[in-house]
Order: sequence, then structure tokens, then C-alpha cells
Amino acid sequence: MRKIAALIFPGFELLDVFGPMEMFGLLPEEYALELIAENRGPVASNQGLSAYATATTADGMNHDILFVPGGAGTRREVENASLVAWIDKASQHAEFTLSVCTGSALLARAGILDNRRATTNKAAFSWVASQGPGVDWVPRARWVEDGNILTSSGVSAGMDMALGAIQRMHGRDRALEVAKWCEYTWQEDRDHDPFAEVHGLV
Amino acid sequence: MRKIAALIFPGFELLDVFGPMEMFGLLPEEYALELIAENRGPVASNQGLSAYATATTADGMNHDILFVPGGAGTRREVENASLVAWIDKASQHAEFTLSVCTGSALLARAGILDNRRATTNKAAFSWVASQGPGVDWVPRARWVEDGNILTSSGVSAGMDMALGAIQRMHGRDRALEVAKWCEYTWQEDRDHDPFAEVHGLV
Repeated sequence: MRKIAALIFPGFELLDVFGPMEMFGLLPEEYALELIAENRGPVASNQGLSAYATATTADGMNHDILFVPGGAGTRREVENASLVAWIDKASQHAEFTLSVCTGSALLARAGILDNRRATTNKAAFSWVASQGPGVDWVPRARWVEDGNILTSSGVSAGMDMALGAIQRMHGRDRALEVAKWCEYTWQEDRDHDPFAEVHGLV
Repeated sequence: MRKIAALIFPGFELLDVFGPMEMFGLLPEEYALELIAENRGPVASNQGLSAYATATTADGMNHDILFVPGGAGTRREVENASLVAWIDKASQHAEFTLSVCTGSALLARAGILDNRRATTNKAAFSWVASQGPGVDWVPRARWVEDGNILTSSGVSAGMDMALGAIQRMHGRDRALEVAKWCEYTWQEDRDHDPFAEVHGLV
């Protein structure tokens, strides 16, 4: 059983968090989920609706997987030194670190991605890349795996990465079982990324 | 500007709610979102993580769109007479009523789907169908539109339906713009449903 600490902050992107959490949450014998924020209680998303954090970054760490979403709030949080320091420590504590969309800007600022391959949202690519000059940013990828760090492209790509993470930890059949239950057509090939062209990056 | 009342209840399915809300929420000049529950405050999903309801079913109605998700909690809520009665009234109040997954069991119990075409989760099809003997249940459909009632298949199908609803209200270009921003490959054809075969319904 692995515990996932899913970070949320004001202006997090709804689907970045809850697409992947849907997938992991369908294997309750394998994953325990928790929303963690700087303050316990409701945290408003980029879409206005709030999720409820039951743990805080001041609590002790007991997670196996660190999950960092994107959203407009990342533009503010990259300057939040104490949160960025927590992300660095939480990633060192974790067996796996996952980000979706502009969440990789936060990983980059924490230094976690230096000398690693990573990707991000296609519409915000140049801003995110500017947050980590030492990162090997990959413009065409649905998601990227470099060691135990998985970074996905924008928003809906997080679901494909989550299934890729499930595959890696529990095999392809478990990932396909989750996708079937969600009636989701998993895009298994992490290098297939039509949106790199759509957004003019390649 | 249309206001969406998105109902949540204990055991709601995360992606049923937050996939569509991601899509609608990206057009803040067109849609205002609110999570509504029997009680204000945190409501635990089927995956354990909680969303935060800021409105209750006891408040006055001021929505334009009623949105009803599915999830394991629907098995209990179909027997919740006061909630089912609220859904009936809230649908009458609404310009559009949308459901995802087993949310259509709640619409069926409220009588909203009688003599209409509707669909639901493929893995729970026979149970949902038993909740509405007067409904024309469609086994093969990504989503179904019958007048101003839109019902989708399981979990991830809600995102395709949401884009279909945006198309209907604001045109195909706006729907495609939202999909592009989310890096989401919209399955536009609502009759294309590979999961009907996967789950042995056709």
C-alpha cells in the first residue's frame, strides 16, 4: 500500500488533481490518498470550486508518492519559498514524484528536475521552462519518466500518466482494468503528443 | 452567464464531477459553478478525498443547469426520498439537466427520464436500468441528448458530454478551444461507444 500526498494550493487546476486521483483511488488496496495544503480546510481551485485539505505541509511526512498539480496558482507558488522547500523535502522522502501540467514549474523551482528530462503544459511551455534552466524540457511527450520522477503535459495528460504509473507499479493489466472501469481510452504511448503541434512547439 | 449547481453526496465519483467542471470552469464568462449538497462543508468522494459544498439543497434555487454525478453513493441516495424530490424540482427549475455515470439512476428515480432516451455507466447498466423501467435506456452511446436532458456513460464520458453541452450552448469552436487548452482529445461523436462491447452490452 502506497500513500499519495496530493498537494493543493489556491488556483490549482481541478482535472490535474482529480483525473489522476480517480485512477489511483480505484485501487484502494494499493493506494491511500490525501489532499495536503499549507492550511487545513477548503482550498479554491482555478475553476472556483473547492477541495478540502485534511493534512498540512507542517504535519510530519508519511507519504510514498508526492503528487503536484498545475493551475494558475503555480505562477504565485513558484515564489513561495517555504512551499518550494517543502516540495524538495517531500520529493526526497518519496519513492515517486509526479506532476501534471504547470506543476513541473514547482518541481523545477525545487531543483528536483535539474539534469532530468521533464515535460509540462504545452500552452505554458516557455514560462515553465524558464523556471528550470537546468532541466531537459521535452516539448513532444504525453508524459515523461526519468527515474522515479514522472511529469505530464497539460491537464488531461495527467490521467494517461497516472495509468502509466499504475502500470509501472502494478503491471499493464491493472492499468487497463482501471481504464476500462472509467470507460477511459488510455493513451498508452507516452511519446505520442498531438498537442505539441497544435500549440506550435515542434 | 449560466449557473451550474453540481450536486455532491457521500461516495460521489471524483472524475464524474471534476472532469466536466474543469471544462465548464474554463469559460468563466459563460458558466458559474457551485457544489451543492444536503449539508454545507466537506463531502467525501468514492475515492476518499473530499470536495467542499458551499450551498445546500435547503437554499433557494438559482441555477440554470443541474449537474448530477454518479458513484457508489448513488446506491444509497436512490432511497433518499428528500434528495430525489429535490432533484426533480431542481431539474424542473433548470434549463438543462446533466448526469454522468450512475447519476442517471437518481434522475430516473426522480421521474425525469420517463419516456426519454438516456444512458449510464456500462458496468452498472442493469442496476441503473432497474431504477427507471419507463426509460428508454441506450446501451451504446458515449452520451445521449433528449431535449434538455443530457446523460453520459461512465466516469470519463462526462468530459465528452460536457464539451457537447458547451458546443450546444456556445458552438463547436468554443468546445474545441476548451479541449485544446486541456490537451484533451474530445470524442465528438456521441454515438461512438467502444465500452458497450467491452462490457458485453451489445
